[in-house]
Amino acid sequence: MMASDNGKVLEELFEIIAGRKGGDPEKSYTAKLFARGRNKIVQKLGEEAVETVVAALTEGSERVVSESADLLYHLLVLWADCGVKPVDVWAELARRQGISGIDEKKSRKK
Amino acid sequence: MMASDNGKVLEELFEIIAGRKGGDPEKSYTAKLFARGRNKIVQKLGEEAVETVVAALTEGSERVVSESADLLYHLLVLWADCGVKPVDVWAELARRQGISGIDEKKSRKK
Amino acid sequence: MMASDNGKVLEELFEIIAGRKGGDPEKSYTAKLFARGRNKIVQKLGEEAVETVVAALTEGSERVVSESADLLYHLLVLWADCGVKPVDVWAELARRQGISGIDEKKSRKK
Amino acid sequence: MMASDNGKVLEELFEIIAGRKGGDPEKSYTAKLFARGRNKIVQKLGEEAVETVVAALTEGSERVVSESADLLYHLLVLWADCGVKPVDVWAELARRQGISGIDEKKSRKK
Repeated sequence: MMASDNGKVLEELFEIIAGRKGGDPEKSYTAKLFARGRNKIVQKLGEEAVETVVAALTEGSERVVSESADLLYHLLVLWADCGVKPVDVWAELARRQGISGIDEKKSRKK
Repeated sequence: MMASDNGKVLEELFEIIAGRKGGDPEKSYTAKLFARGRNKIVQKLGEEAVETVVAALTEGSERVVSESADLLYHLLVLWADCGVKPVDVWAELARRQGISGIDEKKSRKK
Repeated sequence: MMASDNGKVLEELFEIIAGRKGGDPEKSYTAKLFARGRNKIVQKLGEEAVETVVAALTEGSERVVSESADLLYHLLVLWADCGVKPVDVWAELARRQGISGIDEKKSRKK
Repeated sequence: MMASDNGKVLEELFEIIAGRKGGDPEKSYTAKLFARGRNKIVQKLGEEAVETVVAALTEGSERVVSESADLLYHLLVLWADCGVKPVDVWAELARRQGISGIDEKKSRKK
C-alpha cells in the first residue's frame, strides 16, 4: 500500500482487519483482540483516546499522529466487531456535511 | 458531496474544518470549538470516545455509526488545531501496515 | 456538613445521592441523572475523568480539586445506580493494602 | 488497616501513596508510576475510568467495586503528584453540598 493512496488507507486497513476475525490469536494482534471480545476492544479504544488527548496537550504533533493512528486502528476493529462498515460512517459524515452553516450546531446536538 | 466518494470524505471534511479556524464562533460550531481552544477540543474528543464505547456496548450499530462520526469529526478538529494533516496519519497507518504478521504486535507496543 | 469531618464526606454525600433515586428530576440534578439511566451516568463519569486529565496536565491544582470533586460525585451516583456501597469499595482497597510491597504490582495486574 | 475504618481508608491509602514518591521503582508499582511521570498517571486514570464504565454496563456490581478501587487508587496517585490533598477535595464536596436543592444543577454547570 502506498501512502499516496491516502483516501483509501482506512478502507484497505478495514478489509485487512475484518479478514482477521476468527484468525489465530497467536499470530495476529488483531485476531487476538477479536478473540478477547468487545469489552476489550472498547477498553483499548478508550485508552487510545486518552493517549491522543495527552499527546495533544503535552507531546507535539508527531505524537498526535502516532496516537491518532492507534485510535483509528482500534476504531476500525470496533466497527468490524459491530458489523459497521466504513462506508456507513462516511455516508453519515457526508449527510451531516450537507447541513450547512447555521444549522450545523443544532444537527450535532443530541 | 456524494456518499459514494467515500475514500475522500474525511479529507474533504478536514478541509472544511480547517477553513473555519478564525471564523465567526456565532455562525459555526467548528469555529466556536477552535475559539474555545485545545483543552475544549480534547475534552470533546474524550466525550465522544466514551459515547462510542457506550453505543457499542449497549445501543446497536446505528448508534455506533453516529457516535463514530462525532468522534471522527472532533479528531479532525484536533488535527487542524495541532497542525496535523490527514495524509500524515494515513502515511503512519500505511507504514505500520507494511510491517506484517508476526511483528504486528511488537510494532504497536510502545 | 463540616469540611473537618473529612473521613465521612463521601459516605454522607453517597447517602444524599442514594436518597434522590426516584426523586423529581425537575428539582434535583441527581434525580435527573438517575432518571436518564446508567448510560448517561457512565457517560458523565467518562467526561469528568477526561476533564480531570486535562486539568492535571494544563490547569493547576485548584482545577484538579474541582474536577476530582465532579468525578467523585458521578462515581457515587454510579455506585448508587449499581447497588454498590462505599463500604464495599473501602473494603476492597483495604484488602489490597494488606498485600504489601513486592506483591503490590502483581495484585493489580488483571 | 481494618475494613471497618471505612471513613479513613482513602486518607490512609493517600498517605501510603504519597510516601512512595521518590521510592524505588523496582520495589513498588506506586513509586514506578511517580517515576514515569504525570502523563503516565493521567493515562492510567483514563484507562481505569473506561474500565469502570465497561464494568457498569456489562459486568455486574462486583466488577464495578474492583474497577472503582483501581480508579480511586490512580486518582490518589494523581492528587499526590499534583500537590492536592484529600481534605482539599472533601472541602470542595462539602462546600457544594451546602448549596442545596434547586441551585444544585446551576452550581455544577461550568
